[in-house]
Formats: sequence, C-alpha cells, structure tokens
Amino acid sequence: MAITLDQLNAASADEAAQLLDGLYEHSPWIAREALAQRPFRSLAHLKQAMAAVVAQAGVEKQLALLRAHPELAGKAMVANSLTAESTHEQGKAGLADCTPQEFATIQQLNADYNARFGFPFILAVRGPRGTGLSRAAIIETFARRLANPVEAEREECLRNVHRVVELRVNDKFGVAPAEGEQVWDQLERLAQHSDPGFAEKGQLTVTYLTDAHRAAARQIEQDMRGAGFDEVAVDAVGNVVGLYRGTGDRRLLTGSHYDTVRNGGKYDGRLGIYVPIACVRALAAQGRRLPFGLEVVGFAEEEGQRYKATFLGSGALIGGFDPAWLDQKDADGTSMREAMQHAGLPATLEAIRALRRDPAAYLGFVEVHIEQGPVLHEMDLPLGVVTSINGGVRYLCEVTGMASHAGTTPMGRRRDAAVAVAELALFVEQRAARDGDSVGTIGILNVPGGSTNVVPGRCQFTLDLRAPSDPQRDALVADVLAQLQAICDRRGVRASTEQTMRAAAAPSHPQWQARWERAVQALGVPLHRMPSGAGHDAMKLHEVMPQAMLFVRGQNAGISHNPLESTTADDIDLAVRALRHLLDQLASDTPA
Amino acid sequence: MAITLDQLNAASADEAAQLLDGLYEHSPWIAREALAQRPFRSLAHLKQAMAAVVAQAGVEKQLALLRAHPELAGKAMVANSLTAESTHEQGKAGLADCTPQEFATIQQLNADYNARFGFPFILAVRGPRGTGLSRAAIIETFARRLANPVEAEREECLRNVHRVVELRVNDKFGVAPAEGEQVWDQLERLAQHSDPGFAEKGQLTVTYLTDAHRAAARQIEQDMRGAGFDEVAVDAVGNVVGLYRGTGDRRLLTGSHYDTVRNGGKYDGRLGIYVPIACVRALAAQGRRLPFGLEVVGFAEEEGQRYKATFLGSGALIGGFDPAWLDQKDADGTSMREAMQHAGLPATLEAIRALRRDPAAYLGFVEVHIEQGPVLHEMDLPLGVVTSINGGVRYLCEVTGMASHAGTTPMGRRRDAAVAVAELALFVEQRAARDGDSVGTIGILNVPGGSTNVVPGRCQFTLDLRAPSDPQRDALVADVLAQLQAICDRRGVRASTEQTMRAAAAPSHPQWQARWERAVQALGVPLHRMPSGAGHDAMKLHEVMPQAMLFVRGQNAGISHNPLESTTADDIDLAVRALRHLLDQLASDTPA
Repeated sequence: MAITLDQLNAASADEAAQLLDGLYEHSPWIAREALAQRPFRSLAHLKQAMAAVVAQAGVEKQLALLRAHPELAGKAMVANSLTAESTHEQGKAGLADCTPQEFATIQQLNADYNARFGFPFILAVRGPRGTGLSRAAIIETFARRLANPVEAEREECLRNVHRVVELRVNDKFGVAPAEGEQVWDQLERLAQHSDPGFAEKGQLTVTYLTDAHRAAARQIEQDMRGAGFDEVAVDAVGNVVGLYRGTGDRRLLTGSHYDTVRNGGKYDGRLGIYVPIACVRALAAQGRRLPFGLEVVGFAEEEGQRYKATFLGSGALIGGFDPAWLDQKDADGTSMREAMQHAGLPATLEAIRALRRDPAAYLGFVEVHIEQGPVLHEMDLPLGVVTSINGGVRYLCEVTGMASHAGTTPMGRRRDAAVAVAELALFVEQRAARDGDSVGTIGILNVPGGSTNVVPGRCQFTLDLRAPSDPQRDALVADVLAQLQAICDRRGVRASTEQTMRAAAAPSHPQWQARWERAVQALGVPLHRMPSGAGHDAMKLHEVMPQAMLFVRGQNAGISHNPLESTTADDIDLAVRALRHLLDQLASDTPA
Repeated sequence: MAITLDQLNAASADEAAQLLDGLYEHSPWIAREALAQRPFRSLAHLKQAMAAVVAQAGVEKQLALLRAHPELAGKAMVANSLTAESTHEQGKAGLADCTPQEFATIQQLNADYNARFGFPFILAVRGPRGTGLSRAAIIETFARRLANPVEAEREECLRNVHRVVELRVNDKFGVAPAEGEQVWDQLERLAQHSDPGFAEKGQLTVTYLTDAHRAAARQIEQDMRGAGFDEVAVDAVGNVVGLYRGTGDRRLLTGSHYDTVRNGGKYDGRLGIYVPIACVRALAAQGRRLPFGLEVVGFAEEEGQRYKATFLGSGALIGGFDPAWLDQKDADGTSMREAMQHAGLPATLEAIRALRRDPAAYLGFVEVHIEQGPVLHEMDLPLGVVTSINGGVRYLCEVTGMASHAGTTPMGRRRDAAVAVAELALFVEQRAARDGDSVGTIGILNVPGGSTNVVPGRCQFTLDLRAPSDPQRDALVADVLAQLQAICDRRGVRASTEQTMRAAAAPSHPQWQARWERAVQALGVPLHRMPSGAGHDAMKLHEVMPQAMLFVRGQNAGISHNPLESTTADDIDLAVRALRHLLDQLASDTPA
C-alpha cells in the first residue's frame, strides 16, 4: 500500500511519523526529526533530510543507530527475530542459504568485527530488481572492511544504513527508480561480453577491437535502435554513433567509452553512453524533438590497454588519430591495422580522418561519468558537478646519496637518499593540500638493493602532480621541484628527474557547468562542485568545443578499475533526470 | 739528507720554514704558521699542527691550496712542469705509463671535475714501500668522487693533501713508519689467499674453513712464529692462537678475526691480529718479558658468511658454540662438521667445549680494529678510543593503508602507506640524532607493486636502531614504535612490526678505556672517544672479562666490507705504538 509525497507533506507530525515507520532500524526518531523540513520537493530531498539528521546527531546516537541493527546472518536471523524489512533483505541476498562453511566464516567475521568496532557489520546487500551482492562478494567486503580504521568504518556503516533506507523508501512510496534500473540492467547485460582469459573467471575486460569488444558494440547499437535513435552506425575506429534528430541542424554531442581496463568495472565509461540513451528513449516515446540533434557516441577506446593509444575514440573526432598507431602491435603481435581489418573496419587513414567533426556544427559536449573517487560517497551525495579535468605532470626520479654502514655512520654524517625522498613526500602532501584541490602522489618508492644495515645510497620514486588549472599545476610542480633541490642541497645528495607525462587541464565551460548545477539543484540534491582527478574523453573534445561533465557517486569508497566498482539504480536514475533537465534548459536556450 | 725533529724544534723561524719547504704544494705559509706551535712532540704532532692551520684558514685559502696542485696526469705532467715531489709521486703510480685510452679517460674526468668543483682532483696515489693505487683504482675513485657534493669533495681533497704531506714529511725526516709498513706488507701477503671465484678476479674473500681460509691460518701461524711467539697452534674451531709468555701466569687476551665478507677489505679484523704480532716482535727482539703473558688470537669466524654462526671464533672461547651449528650446511650442502673434518680439525663437541677460557686467568681483552666508518677520516684523526659497542634492534615492518587513484583521491581522504613511513623516517632521523651517539636507519623501503598513479596501499621497510647502552637503545626503540603507532592512528593506517635481531650493548671497561686514552695522548694525537656502530669479537669476550677497543682510521670515508677499504702504514704504525704503550701501562700496574 504505497504512499505519496503529497500525502506525507500534508499529514500531521504523528501521522507522518507513522507513514515513515520502519525506515531506520528501530530508530523512528530520525524520520520524526526530518519531518520538520517538510514540504519535501522530491524523495531525494526526503532521503537527504533524514541523512542530515543522522549526520548532526553526534557519535553516540550514531552508534546507537548502528547497534540497533542485526548481525548479518547472525543469531537474530537464526532465531527469526529480525524486523520484517531485514528478513526480506537478508533473504534476498541468499544469506539464509549459506553453506555451513560460509556460515562459520560469517560468524567468525561477526565476532572479530564486533570485538574491533563495538557495533555490528552493516552492508546494503540488496540491489535493484532483486539483484544484489553474492554471498562471496558479501564475505569479501566483510573481510576487507574489518581492516578499516574505526572512524572510517563507522561512516561506512552509516552510508550503508542510508542506502538500506533508500531502498525502503522506494518500497514504501512504490516508486522504483525505473530509468536507473533499466540502465543498470542494460549495463549488466553489456558486461556479459568479456575478453578470453577474463570471461571464464567472471571478470570484465573489453579491450580495443577484440571479439568481445565488437559484441559490446553490437549490443550498444541494438540498445540505441531499441531506444528510438534515428541513425545508428559504427564508425571507422569502432565508435558506436547514434543520432536522435532535432528540429535544427546543430547537435549536442555526448557519450563516453565502452572499452574497459583489465578486470575493470561495469560503469566506468559505459554509464555515460546509457544515461543519454535513457533520455532519448523518453523523448522518442513522447515523440518529442528538441531544437538540436542529440549525437551519442560510445567511444571504442579510451583506456589504452591493448595499444598505447589512449583516447583513440574521442581523439578521432578532433583529428587526433596518430597514423603511426596503425602499425603498433599488441602483446600478441597483431597490428592495429590487422585488428581493424579483422573487425570489418576500413583500416585506412582516409576513412579515419573523415571522422573529424566540424565544431561549428555542435553546441558542445557533455559527459556523464562515475566519479572513480571517494568524494561523493563520503559526502553522501549522489551527483557532483565537475569544474575541471585536472592537468597533470609525471616524473620518474632518483636521489643519489652515499650508501654507508648503518651502524658506523653517525646521523650527522649521512647522505641518506631515502630520508631525502621521505622529506619530499611530506612536502608534496602538504603543498598539494594547501591548494585544496591539487593532488600529489609518490606512487613508486624503492631503495634498489636495500639492506637492513646499509644507509640507502639510492632511492627511486615517481611524482604525479595534478591540479584543475595549468597555472595551478605548474606552480605546484615548480614548488615541488624547488623543494627537491633544496632538500638535496641541504643533505648533500643529488636528484635526477625525468618528465614522463604532461597533460593540460580542461576547465569546464562556465555556461555548461552552470547548466549541470541547475539540473542537480532542481532534483533536490545538494550541489557539490569538484575537479576530476582522472582523465576523460571530454578532455579531447575540450580542444574544439565547450564541455562540462557530471559525476555519479561510486559505492565502496568510489573504487574503480576494479570489479568492486559499483553504483546504484537510484543514483543512475538521478543522473538520467539531471541530463534531461540539461536538455530542457538547452532547448529553451536554443533557437529551433 | 734527512732532518730531525730536534733540529726543527731548535731552528730559527726562517731556518725551520726552509727545512719544511716543499710539503704543501706551492703553499709554504702552512708550515710557517704551524711552526708557532713548536716544540713538536712527534712527527704526528707536526702533521696535526699543519692540518689544523689549513682547517682554520677558511674556504678561500683552502681553495687556493687545492688550486696550487697539478691535475692528475695532466698538462703539467706532459709538459714536465710538476714539482719534484709530484713528479716522483705521479711517476710511482704509473701515471706516466697510461694507455692512450686511460689517458683520454683521465683527461675527460679532469675536465668534468674542474667544471663541477673549480679545483683539480687530488688523490694520494702513492702507498708505502712504493706500493700505491693501480691506475684502474685511480680512475674508479676519480669517477666516484665526481659525484660528491661540492663541500664534501673539497674536504676529501684536503684530506688527500694532508696524506700526501704525511708521506713527504716521512721522506724529509727519513723516518719510515717501519712497524706500520711491515704490518701493511704482511696484510698484503695475507690477502693473496682468497676463495675460488673471487681469487681469479683479484677479490678478497675468505670464508670459514675453505682452503684459502686454512692457507691464511698457516700464514698467520708462520708470522707469529717468525715474530717470536713461544707457542703457536690452531685450535678446534680454527682459531690461530699465539702465546708470548710473561713472567706471571695471568695473560692479556687480544686479537681479531681473519675471515672476511665476500669481496671485502684487507684490514677488517686482520689488523687486530697483526698489530699485536708487531708488538711481540719488538718484545722478543729485546728479549723482554712482561709480567703477564700475551695471548693473541686470530679468530677463524666472525662474519657469518659461509654458515649462520657469526662470532663463532670468539664465541668458542666463552662457551658460546651452538652444537646445532655442526649440522648446519653451507650453500653447497657441506655441513660444518664435514668442513671441520676436511680442514683436519677434530670436529667434536668435546674438543670445542675445551676451548672455553677461565676468565680468572685473564687480565682482560683488548682489540684493535679499523673503524669501518667515516668519523676519524672526516675528523683527520688516525686513532679513536671506543666507549661502547652499540646494542642494536632490528625490525621488519609493513604499513597498510588503502590503495586508491592518485588523480581522484583528494589529499584529505588518503590513507597513504608510504607517506606514513616517510613521516616515521624523518622521526627516526631526528630522534636518533637527539641522543648524539644513537643511530637509526630505514635501509629497506619499498611500495610493493607501486604505480605512478596509485596512492600506495602498502609500504614495507626495515628499522635498524643502535645505541651505546641498552637503556638508551630501548628508549630509542620505544619512542620510534610509539611514534609509528601515533602516525598510524592519525593517518588511519595500520603497521605490523617483527623483531628480527636484538643485541646487547658492550660498554668498554672504564679502566681499560682509560689505558687506550693515555696511549693515544702520549703519541701526540688528539683524543677522540666514540661508540662502535658495528659488532666486534670484543662483544663476545665482554660477557666474561673487561674489554676495550681502539679504532684505526679508514681511508675513503671509512668504507668497509668493500675492496676500497684502506688505511695507511702511518696510521697502523701509530696503532702499534698505542698498543705498546698500553702494554707498558699494564706492566706497571701488574705485579709480576
């Protein structure tokens, strides 16, 4: 017996509290306090309001909320004393069907977890449409989270509680996030295509122009046709291009990539193809035409996995295809030209050069992408508006000091290469943090041939420095390199640095960024602006037209390039609605 | 036409300056200023006085001194415009006989060196008795020093200038450091015995009970007999034991080890056998008996190279031989028992246990050893008195954080394992330095599987912490481990630590240390007290009798466990005289 938002907004405080009964486990005070913020503009608004009550309640009440939850497959399940909601959820995850070994493992994890944290392990085990985490995935996540610091794990549990409540709210209001669920299902189907060697292990790997890659392209073509695109074709580099015609000649370009890293996630790139497809489906269903055409591209290559030709798909649209790539060979000795011929592509430079777009024919480029970072997840926000794709510089470095006896060399007479790098590492951390939105990383760090009793004479390391604008990045780089020199001078050691990568920043076009911001706010979702730390196809289009991106929250602290990459149908649904809002804004702004 | 110290002390200032002409290259002002300190007690005193003038002259005058030197095998040599002294020295080093390729290499090094430092490369190429560095060793040293920081290299050049002057002083006064030169020659001969695989490459490696090891033992026996020892024998573990009888029954024990590390130096250990042999030679030549016997032991095993049985030789004298060692196998599968049998030793526990000494029969133990560190070299001092052999603790550690995307993880949301270790590395450095004589080292440092664009999720490292006393060491360890925990708590990462070694400190016996101090001061050499960072046989004897050690300066910044390990006949000569002084003191203290 579903209720409606109007009904909730109109009810008395007691009636309204009654309507929201059973959302937060044994904790009706949360819904009750949130009701003070009525009227709610959307279910997202209601969910955010309740989450805000929890956030402001303080640690003691948060712990009480967590402790009100049952153990996973614990005594309460065995004793049939779970709440109706929990019984439903744990049952769907198949926890009642554990093997004795799985059950024993979970009991041990429950005991270890309680001893460490003092509250039960909470995981939103139910996915949309009855899908959800497998028992193996639940156990893996459990073991992983057991290693978290206490405070981080308390926050992680609260986020899972909010996710459980989100699903319960949907049930209560009888409103499934239908478009989000459809995209979710389509991405599940798309993930069935995987390269040999990975498919057998249930892992997702789709690299450029493999058979699985071609099958994925056909799937996307089919889904585009099914949604009502007017024209769908695979172009000369393997991009899947769908056009939904407008009443005017100019077009909005959108899309993202469908290739993956090895053993990657289902949402990286692909979400940015299927969210626009969902919008076209709704437009076509209504027979509605916008004053501009909508050109959706599934880029064939972005990750640079099979060939060193990162951003090949989007690069081809701006004339950035390097002719030398055709002769590049993969690990098996197959050239890109041969791979293209095998895939039925023309494999000629002429055909590839013809893909170059005339920027004048386009309004701009927008891209929806999973965040691939922890920010939105930790802030409990489903969407984020990208301010800029960070520019980056990478260096391969080595400090040379003097190896000497760890016992006989007094501290004041050392030329320790590793301590010099340690000093730099702390500087990088502090200097990047000072900007607020710069990042700096020493990802590789090694004393070659190091011994316990030898003062390090050499230390090899990498620097990865990124910032939302080129001047900000360059100032960061200059400060870090100057500090390295100062450390070396002071310590009597020497450093060599070799630049291995340099990429310009791609700030969002202010007008287009503003459109995303209005779209997010219209959904009742708090606005959060953030730079993109990773590179995206939008960086390429940035060179020829205005662009702006929308980020969608990733679960599991935003983990990406990993099978644990995940998002929810609710978040996807919000992304579809945000893109629709942007299209509507653009329609009002654009003369037909 | 040699001069005498008395002559120098009695001369007028001008006459004296004339007598010292030609010592410091084109820089008579140094000798002239040093003359103000007359009368000189010894040639060592004169040398120290001149070195002190240079040290106090300031950088400008030091640079002028360096620039007054010719290039090595440079234009001046080609043009025959060297000073007589330089011609003699460069000629002895065979530099006039360079191959065209060697000559070209040296010219390039000269050019690079001058461009980097602004003064010529200076190396004391002449050894005692016409020996000296080979051309290959000169070129290798040249290339290595080209990498030094400017200030360190200026100091290194000045030390070489002082060494050149030391040899010129000896020539001028017609006094060779005869006992030092004899020990030098004996150690050169002893170094002819080297294990297969190393001997062919001219490298010195003598591991426990190999044929080369047995040959070295026979050489030591022979040298002891030649010096006039009353009894010489090889004991059940391979120690070479020589006794020079006294008029009383009690004995002074001294000695060091004759085994080496792989590709090691000629002085490590062996110096401590041959310095006492030199003293016995002089006593025997005079037919003089001390009121105590002098028992000199060449310990067969200290380095733990062939078997994991470090300090086997000295350990056997205190009953510290582990019976399990007999069955331990080397890399070729030969057990220690088999190796003993092959060497003609009894290979029975009974025979080994019989080696245990009765401490009541001994006055104490003294050991002369090359420093194996940079302190004396950098301080321009030939001898140092050891205050304690440092106690040490080692740990194998790992910090676990959370690997994440280097682009998308904001600085404030990272759990970077490597930066946590970097913070600890700086703490270790500062905390050890605070004690003055503690040392702390992170010798192994590695981010396993690190990538440029991934925030390190793991970082492996070692800790090596040493101090002159156990309480000081334990306080250091406690502070470092507490800081590691504090860093982990603050950064949300975890650390595991595994103790892999723990050794007690062996402070010198105050009375015995004082004897060494008096001996050094009597030689006109400034007194410097210092802990020993490395372990020595004296640590073992420490468990049963009073002990104190004397350090002899190593050249090349004290490098050891390396073929570059080096000392001078002058320094060895001072060590012989210091030990003789200690014996004389002991003779006065000991009732016959």
